[in-house]
Amino acid sequence: MTSPAAYRLIRRIQFADTDAAGVAHFSRLLMMVEEAEHEFLRSLQIPILTESSAWPCVALDVNYLCKCEFGDLIAIELHVASIGRTSITYEFHAFQSQASDQSKVFCGKMVKCHILPGKSGATPIPESIRDILRAFLPHVI
Amino acid sequence: MTSPAAYRLIRRIQFADTDAAGVAHFSRLLMMVEEAEHEFLRSLQIPILTESSAWPCVALDVNYLCKCEFGDLIAIELHVASIGRTSITYEFHAFQSQASDQSKVFCGKMVKCHILPGKSGATPIPESIRDILRAFLPHVI
Amino acid sequence: MTSPAAYRLIRRIQFADTDAAGVAHFSRLLMMVEEAEHEFLRSLQIPILTESSAWPCVALDVNYLCKCEFGDLIAIELHVASIGRTSITYEFHAFQSQASDQSKVFCGKMVKCHILPGKSGATPIPESIRDILRAFLPHVI
Amino acid sequence: MTSPAAYRLIRRIQFADTDAAGVAHFSRLLMMVEEAEHEFLRSLQIPILTESSAWPCVALDVNYLCKCEFGDLIAIELHVASIGRTSITYEFHAFQSQASDQSKVFCGKMVKCHILPGKSGATPIPESIRDILRAFLPHVI
Repeated sequence: MTSPAAYRLIRRIQFADTDAAGVAHFSRLLMMVEEAEHEFLRSLQIPILTESSAWPCVALDVNYLCKCEFGDLIAIELHVASIGRTSITYEFHAFQSQASDQSKVFCGKMVKCHILPGKSGATPIPESIRDILRAFLPHVI
Repeated sequence: MTSPAAYRLIRRIQFADTDAAGVAHFSRLLMMVEEAEHEFLRSLQIPILTESSAWPCVALDVNYLCKCEFGDLIAIELHVASIGRTSITYEFHAFQSQASDQSKVFCGKMVKCHILPGKSGATPIPESIRDILRAFLPHVI
Repeated sequence: MTSPAAYRLIRRIQFADTDAAGVAHFSRLLMMVEEAEHEFLRSLQIPILTESSAWPCVALDVNYLCKCEFGDLIAIELHVASIGRTSITYEFHAFQSQASDQSKVFCGKMVKCHILPGKSGATPIPESIRDILRAFLPHVI
Repeated sequence: MTSPAAYRLIRRIQFADTDAAGVAHFSRLLMMVEEAEHEFLRSLQIPILTESSAWPCVALDVNYLCKCEFGDLIAIELHVASIGRTSITYEFHAFQSQASDQSKVFCGKMVKCHILPGKSGATPIPESIRDILRAFLPHVI
């Protein structure tokens, strides 16, 4: 994806993110992707968890390219890849963000669906939210 | 505390419980204490999380005595130390549970209070629950 | 995959696994897949974390099909889908394991690669380990 | 403690920090205290995890005063309460940091001891580190 990121989060790898192999645990890196997603939605005043909206993860596709360690600063770049009737597909790329090292750490896709908390099944994304997010879709030339 | 434990949970230290120093992270060991508490309540059919009961932690006092590592089996012994109007104080002692090593890993006290989920402040523990738990109090001779 | 699972782990959703939407968090369910993988390797006496072996996750592909909640018992069925020179691809399917509900909760693939801890890059899986794992590959008729 | 905090960290409650009761889980709040400690040490260029230094938690004493929820901004104020031969005692106070609500969320003490990673037992805190930290001790008048 060559369009600019919809959101860019810098996040330090904390001690509790690491495991006994000395690196950030793969599951903890995914929490950071969700933190980026939530900061993105928050920056747009899109509700994240209310009586009428929640966004559980329904699909994930991740590649881990190189390790990151305690104390590393990671830049997570989030893109809105597509908007469906009830779900949003995000693409993400995470990089080391030190001057000396900008290597890609992991990347992938995450699909979040829109639900009414406590109800089963997905529910359409409100038009007002779709309108806001549409501006972040990759441009077709 | 010399009376027998109210509940004894054997729990393996999982990879995601460890940190880059190669040992179980102190915060993850506390999750295991709560797992023991919940298995104890579950075994007595005491509600853990319903519309009329939840048990947040209101106080903790823990000493970590020796490290435990990925793959170790830990025995968590839970005692009911006292029952207040709105809270239960548990005492816990965690041991290595291999034949060759029974050393104490950590111990402490945890106070859980009874609330109505979504409401502020503690609410009295129902008499039916107090009746069940009273049997686990240390005996005064 | 119709061959029997290489390993089947029953795991209760703990309170610390849940989130404010009232369900198990997607990242925590992935820790359970790794717990199943590690119990599988442990049952075969294959080293999981030693000076000569560690198994970081290099790729994940997951679909979350229905929610699971605090206290639910989940059965995670792990299959060895393929064995590469330096990596193992597992397939996993997780089900509710109550008598009244056997619905599939999530499923996917996880690629774990073999490394020497502290070194960069993957290292070939020792032949002794390949020999053990080969028995769990799906049979070609 | 009335002296100014040695370090003050503002941290948002993330979705993965919450539990099914709708609030931040007590164990996750302790990870944030350690994040504050590590940012404090980092700001002073004191080694946090190297071949010659690691700082496991050996004791905790925490009181949880009111709940905090997904999205809340929490200010964690860290004080150096005392410096022993092999350990540092921190005191911490965490507050809601919105303009409309500055209530105290939790507070307590955490003792971190100095070890050589991989070795058993505590090891004296190097004099160079003690010199730096001494400036943060509460003043005796």
